[in-house]
Amino acid sequence: MTKALGYAAAHSFTRLKPMEIERDDPKANEVAIEVLFTGVCHSDVHQCENDWGNTVYPCMPGHEVVGRVTALGDAVTRHKVGDLVGVGCMIDSCGTCASCVAGIEQYCEGPNGWLATYNGPMKPKAQAADGTNMYGRDNTFGGYSNAIVVREDFVLKVPAALPIEAAAPILCAGVTTYSPLKHWGVKAGHHVGVVGFGGLGDMGVKLALAMGARVTVFTTTKEKVADAEKLGAKGVVEGDKAAYAALANSFDFILSTVPEKHEVDSFVPLLKRDATFCAVGALVPMAGYNNMVMVMHRNQLAGSLIGSIAETQEVLDFCAEHGIAPDVQVIPIQEINEAFKKVKTGDVRYRYVIDIDSLRHEMTEAA
Amino acid sequence: MTKALGYAAAHSFTRLKPMEIERDDPKANEVAIEVLFTGVCHSDVHQCENDWGNTVYPCMPGHEVVGRVTALGDAVTRHKVGDLVGVGCMIDSCGTCASCVAGIEQYCEGPNGWLATYNGPMKPKAQAADGTNMYGRDNTFGGYSNAIVVREDFVLKVPAALPIEAAAPILCAGVTTYSPLKHWGVKAGHHVGVVGFGGLGDMGVKLALAMGARVTVFTTTKEKVADAEKLGAKGVVEGDKAAYAALANSFDFILSTVPEKHEVDSFVPLLKRDATFCAVGALVPMAGYNNMVMVMHRNQLAGSLIGSIAETQEVLDFCAEHGIAPDVQVIPIQEINEAFKKVKTGDVRYRYVIDIDSLRHEMTEAA
Repeated sequence: MTKALGYAAAHSFTRLKPMEIERDDPKANEVAIEVLFTGVCHSDVHQCENDWGNTVYPCMPGHEVVGRVTALGDAVTRHKVGDLVGVGCMIDSCGTCASCVAGIEQYCEGPNGWLATYNGPMKPKAQAADGTNMYGRDNTFGGYSNAIVVREDFVLKVPAALPIEAAAPILCAGVTTYSPLKHWGVKAGHHVGVVGFGGLGDMGVKLALAMGARVTVFTTTKEKVADAEKLGAKGVVEGDKAAYAALANSFDFILSTVPEKHEVDSFVPLLKRDATFCAVGALVPMAGYNNMVMVMHRNQLAGSLIGSIAETQEVLDFCAEHGIAPDVQVIPIQEINEAFKKVKTGDVRYRYVIDIDSLRHEMTEAA
Repeated sequence: MTKALGYAAAHSFTRLKPMEIERDDPKANEVAIEVLFTGVCHSDVHQCENDWGNTVYPCMPGHEVVGRVTALGDAVTRHKVGDLVGVGCMIDSCGTCASCVAGIEQYCEGPNGWLATYNGPMKPKAQAADGTNMYGRDNTFGGYSNAIVVREDFVLKVPAALPIEAAAPILCAGVTTYSPLKHWGVKAGHHVGVVGFGGLGDMGVKLALAMGARVTVFTTTKEKVADAEKLGAKGVVEGDKAAYAALANSFDFILSTVPEKHEVDSFVPLLKRDATFCAVGALVPMAGYNNMVMVMHRNQLAGSLIGSIAETQEVLDFCAEHGIAPDVQVIPIQEINEAFKKVKTGDVRYRYVIDIDSLRHEMTEAA
């Protein structure tokens, strides 16, 4: 057991404040990691504010974690001390259900689902179908802290070619967009739409372009149209009827990264026959859909949840190979509450990443 | 030009009444058909009452038409006089767009879409993108009449093994359920859900069973549970929470045949990972969907529109081969307004089919 420091929310209405926690020593198959950088995901805000009604307090977020291995359990074979590694949204899963066996742990059908890096188990003990808590933990604490201990199979290798701080958001924003782009077969020559141009949208655009697709970005922020064009995409302001009319029946796939409830009816007619509109950000009831429009070209609405551990490694390697990375703004952890506000208003360009070194200073001062 | 008699609605608020129309002599590639039986589709009611806001009056419905060939254009090669034939929802399409070339005319992307058997062109002249009316007709009249003239490529062969009157509903109810079952790959060993147990549901259940699937029917009518079980399916009353809980994560495909707006959120958790819920009946805005539920197993909501001409022939042959047919109640056309009422209240078991001979008596009397 070692002491660690992190920033956590005590209640849905409070600011994140320093909190001391204890991290277990690594078990045989676990790795201890000194955290270097942690991305700030919009879902961190949702979770701290209990927008999904399932938050267990205190809530210490952080599931885009990059760090260095400091200690190993006896049985660890995949990592060694000093390795630059990453931890994403998951730190464990049942390992035996059909989805886990298929290597897509994000759809784990075990009694508690996969174990979230923070606020896990996702399904509190009382809610699991059979009352079990297979992970033996009531709450997990994420990467808004200086140290974390994770089962080796859920620890990713961060390629040396990636800027360390920019690698962090690939672990959630990257894989959450990569997984559906891959699942729905995006390839060279396709026309891909990306709705919402924040941290996930930024990665969705870069990944789809790197896959060879032509990309059109839909954004509510006029000023971001130029940013989209700088990346090599086309930018459209959401709701621009003339632009939408010109795009009718033209998309092979549309990926919505909008983290809030939004309408889908205006996007369905933009899809080609048999094409899919997939929303990964809005984990809430949607505004509804008109099935008359859906049937006209046999279209589909879909949801997709983060990505598997294998896909997370794939997207890290893909980004290194293609020389792409998230656009990030590095902040000290002391600015986290201000950063949360800007994530909510969409004023971040495009992802905040916490320099955990700033937290280490607090420990030194306290010592 | 020959005179024909039919039943039509003059306005959205009127009962269907006899109306004399003129049918063109068959052009070189057309077939003249003496109508014998015509199915009564729920969409006939929607169209007569202008529920979709696109009805052109007078409206003479009927797109489940079985009859005998009485005359041929000079160039017709596929049919001969005396053949027992069928006409479904479409009587023409552009023939040149990607969907038509792919043989799925129901997704025709031509300026007027496919030509509906009645109330066609679907997109009135003024609404077509480029203002054209490629079919040169302002309105079409369907099979609630004693005669119809149709392009030979859109005329189906009715297998001798099918009961004539029961063949009619296969032309819409049959192909509308067959096409999505086939498109989403339903096969032996699958578990298929059918929501709504009317004319389409009856065919959806029989077809899915004949494809080797295990079938569960969701119905709002308790008395129909026994009917489902007679067919070899399991029956569940919609909203039965205990039954739904037992069915969680168990369906490979769910087909909704409900012809009205309805909620989908209670069905999504019943789907296996990557499985689809497809609605073919509700051509209206749906009650919405919760994307949090959708992402948990990467599920999809889809729409599907009738089926292609090739699929219509396939499903006629499939029904003949497997000895299945819709459950029908044959009525004289004089009872059509009463039948419409029972279609709206769901009191039909399971499809009304008009014996067009009853219409011929009116012509004799008038003569």
